[in-house]
Amino acid sequence: MPAPAMNADAIAQLLRDEFPQFFHPGRGLTIERVDYGNIRVKRRFQEESIRPGGTISGPTMMELADFAMYVAVFSVAGPIPMAVTTNLNINFLRKPGRGDLIADAKLLKVGKRLVVGEVAIYSHGEGDPIAHVTTTYSIP
Amino acid sequence: MPAPAMNADAIAQLLRDEFPQFFHPGRGLTIERVDYGNIRVKRRFQEESIRPGGTISGPTMMELADFAMYVAVFSVAGPIPMAVTTNLNINFLRKPGRGDLIADAKLLKVGKRLVVGEVAIYSHGEGDPIAHVTTTYSIP
Amino acid sequence: MPAPAMNADAIAQLLRDEFPQFFHPGRGLTIERVDYGNIRVKRRFQEESIRPGGTISGPTMMELADFAMYVAVFSVAGPIPMAVTTNLNINFLRKPGRGDLIADAKLLKVGKRLVVGEVAIYSHGEGDPIAHVTTTYSIP
Amino acid sequence: MPAPAMNADAIAQLLRDEFPQFFHPGRGLTIERVDYGNIRVKRRFQEESIRPGGTISGPTMMELADFAMYVAVFSVAGPIPMAVTTNLNINFLRKPGRGDLIADAKLLKVGKRLVVGEVAIYSHGEGDPIAHVTTTYSIP
Repeated sequence: MPAPAMNADAIAQLLRDEFPQFFHPGRGLTIERVDYGNIRVKRRFQEESIRPGGTISGPTMMELADFAMYVAVFSVAGPIPMAVTTNLNINFLRKPGRGDLIADAKLLKVGKRLVVGEVAIYSHGEGDPIAHVTTTYSIP
Repeated sequence: MPAPAMNADAIAQLLRDEFPQFFHPGRGLTIERVDYGNIRVKRRFQEESIRPGGTISGPTMMELADFAMYVAVFSVAGPIPMAVTTNLNINFLRKPGRGDLIADAKLLKVGKRLVVGEVAIYSHGEGDPIAHVTTTYSIP
Repeated sequence: MPAPAMNADAIAQLLRDEFPQFFHPGRGLTIERVDYGNIRVKRRFQEESIRPGGTISGPTMMELADFAMYVAVFSVAGPIPMAVTTNLNINFLRKPGRGDLIADAKLLKVGKRLVVGEVAIYSHGEGDPIAHVTTTYSIP
Repeated sequence: MPAPAMNADAIAQLLRDEFPQFFHPGRGLTIERVDYGNIRVKRRFQEESIRPGGTISGPTMMELADFAMYVAVFSVAGPIPMAVTTNLNINFLRKPGRGDLIADAKLLKVGKRLVVGEVAIYSHGEGDPIAHVTTTYSIP
């Protein structure tokens, strides 16, 4: 496995600069690990993403998957002009608990025009994924 | 086509009661039309859902599709205990402009256990969809 | 709506020339209607695609959706070098009967690099779709 | 990991009995390994599934993924009445070579009503997947 094109700190700095509305401390998003095409991010538990029944909302998980894939794309392509999501497919598997969310993203294909990856989302401390995502990005 | 099981006002009231965090005036979501299994909702343009480049974020569109499908499910099933999204597949088709979003949801199947529908999302005033969603709900 | 780039006869001739293993009379595939980005194809009922329980197999429907999309791509792009399917998402909605299958394909986006479309598959003579497909092609 | 509910021989026998049109020696399908919810199947290379350009057709890969998931479902649920595919999402990643296909299926969720799994398809002897599938089955 090659070294990642950017490490976690460099990706976090890039996101703070380019997406200040999205990636700021109040969001509770952190980059936990960056290998080449294989990364882990975390989302701190926040009361306001809870739906009736105590469930974290679907869009919250889709947003986390999107974030994880951006980090994975940076890990192989470096600070390229922003990739555009073209397709995202999510299966919701289990009801998440009231805890932090972990997302592991792995790239399945890194082409010149398209990057395809999968993301498994976990409730912190639990073994089985709560959601599984496959998604495609178009490289401008 | 049968009459809808609930009209737009009744669905809006139910959502305000059950999802006050999600469906409140600040969210800018309105129910525009409710027929049986075929509905339209709107999301007022909001500066904070804009990404660099002037684009409305993907998760914003996924959230709107989710909302549209809830309304469509209520239109055929009435005030049932909450359905759970099991799968959502979204294709992002065009870059949306800085305007309101319209989402048209149509149910493709209303089974005893699963409801499947599609949602087309438009930028207000434009003819071609900016995103297309198919999604499945499990009825408890 | 512009005129289609190729009509049904020209597309059938192209497919016979380029895909003789796939598009030959024994396959039972016909092109019923070709408008610009909006076409209908048919698959004659064949005993051998039946599964136990009298159902037409899933892969048979996926193959028909793939065929319908090729025809739709030709209707807008003409006899281009072969597009490549990059993503296909299918929802199986109802058990098909023992009859011909009809597939209606409609393009949602015709970009320079990606073409996205949806296909609804019907059992001949029935009103509700038995399967719904969205699919993306990459233009070489 | 619990022991599988059926081993490879028992699943092959069941498929020969129940799906003789689909699972017969001429098809070239074999079950290579069966663990609990985690299995491998193989499809022998066959000249007739080749498309112009030397590529194995998309529907051939979708059929193999479907087969892999049936085997995975049997490995956890035993000889249950036939599950029904409700959703299948496939990303085509690379052009396959002219060789055998390997499919590794892993179940992501085994619920009372829905089973969700993913399948990675490889060209024999190559390291990177040529296609990736997620799919959902409904248990009758």
